[in-house]
Amino acid sequence: MASQRRFDLNHVLDQMVEVFWRKGYAATSIQELEAATNLNRPSLYAAFGGKEEMFLAVLRRYGDKYNAHLMAALQQPGSAREALCLYFDKLAAQLSDHHLPPGCLLANTVLEFGSAKEALGRYVREQLAMIESGFYQAIRRGQIENEFRRSLDPRVMARLLTATAEGMALLARSDFGEAALRDIARSALLALDAPGAVTSANRFEARSPEAVPLGPTGL
Amino acid sequence: MASQRRFDLNHVLDQMVEVFWRKGYAATSIQELEAATNLNRPSLYAAFGGKEEMFLAVLRRYGDKYNAHLMAALQQPGSAREALCLYFDKLAAQLSDHHLPPGCLLANTVLEFGSAKEALGRYVREQLAMIESGFYQAIRRGQIENEFRRSLDPRVMARLLTATAEGMALLARSDFGEAALRDIARSALLALDAPGAVTSANRFEARSPEAVPLGPTGL
Repeated sequence: MASQRRFDLNHVLDQMVEVFWRKGYAATSIQELEAATNLNRPSLYAAFGGKEEMFLAVLRRYGDKYNAHLMAALQQPGSAREALCLYFDKLAAQLSDHHLPPGCLLANTVLEFGSAKEALGRYVREQLAMIESGFYQAIRRGQIENEFRRSLDPRVMARLLTATAEGMALLARSDFGEAALRDIARSALLALDAPGAVTSANRFEARSPEAVPLGPTGL
Repeated sequence: MASQRRFDLNHVLDQMVEVFWRKGYAATSIQELEAATNLNRPSLYAAFGGKEEMFLAVLRRYGDKYNAHLMAALQQPGSAREALCLYFDKLAAQLSDHHLPPGCLLANTVLEFGSAKEALGRYVREQLAMIESGFYQAIRRGQIENEFRRSLDPRVMARLLTATAEGMALLARSDFGEAALRDIARSALLALDAPGAVTSANRFEARSPEAVPLGPTGL
């Protein structure tokens, strides 16, 4: 019986990732998760707890499989500019990979839970802060190595690149293919070379303390 | 009785816009629409048809109230750069207006229906193409008036600004406030002044013909 058999947790999570990624949290029913995993409701509840706990486990699995390699690209040694290009090339390829659901599960979840006070909301904001911090550190590295001008505000540019990645994720759910997504990323990176600069007058407004990333570079 | 009384259609639509904007299509129940509009299910079905038709009417109402003034900003006479800044200032203010649900109903709907073959999917792609076309025409105008370099690819830059607007809409559902959103827009506009240029090798890949905007400037 399904409720008594042992199963590979990561394999089950992969099947649930697929459903939630395609449909979103609210639109996914326990019946669909049962069908995707070939496990019944008591087995799923016994393994994960309720739907919210299932989804948190799914988000963590998604992060390991689909976000960790992007964050690693940002930290590759050598040119910071090339690291940023690599991040965005990998992102454009993943967002439009026809073997995967379109777009990005994290971006979908920002829409559903970005401002929620509960664990899901906190998790999503932490992930966004981690991405923003990754961009910040790459830009700072590029400034220290004289690839980027010192007059750039790395926090503002990190926010631009975060918004660019999220906008790409959203448009990948429509009819934007890989080349169009790559164009978007490459043109956002042009802003790093523009003669002007945007300096935020009020850099920390409206962001909760938990969302301010504290990276090893002392952001 | 609710089912027999006459009602102001736009007022009812405004109440339904609020619910769908906050919760998304899938997570909104007819009961919630009944509660928000103070109309019962038969009245709602008689007025609109099914849930999908209600949502299409809601999207059109949303466009009239919350997108038309942004598109008008892009077309204001004078400097194209100022028109783009005005668009994004208005967008940042609207996305973070505490009297409205956070973010943008259209962006939410791109996630839910961006690739759907049905009427909702077509409507969403048409709206995205209209926004992209608005940016394209403003950038072309700026090139003709020598505000922007002729070597810019206006289609690529229009895509960047579309992705920026959608990324801002997504981050507004999290903890990004108005100043942070404005920083993102201003730094994206810096890309218009960068010395480099991104020219797409394959500009029309993966976009369906219906999504290619054909504006009066002969895009």
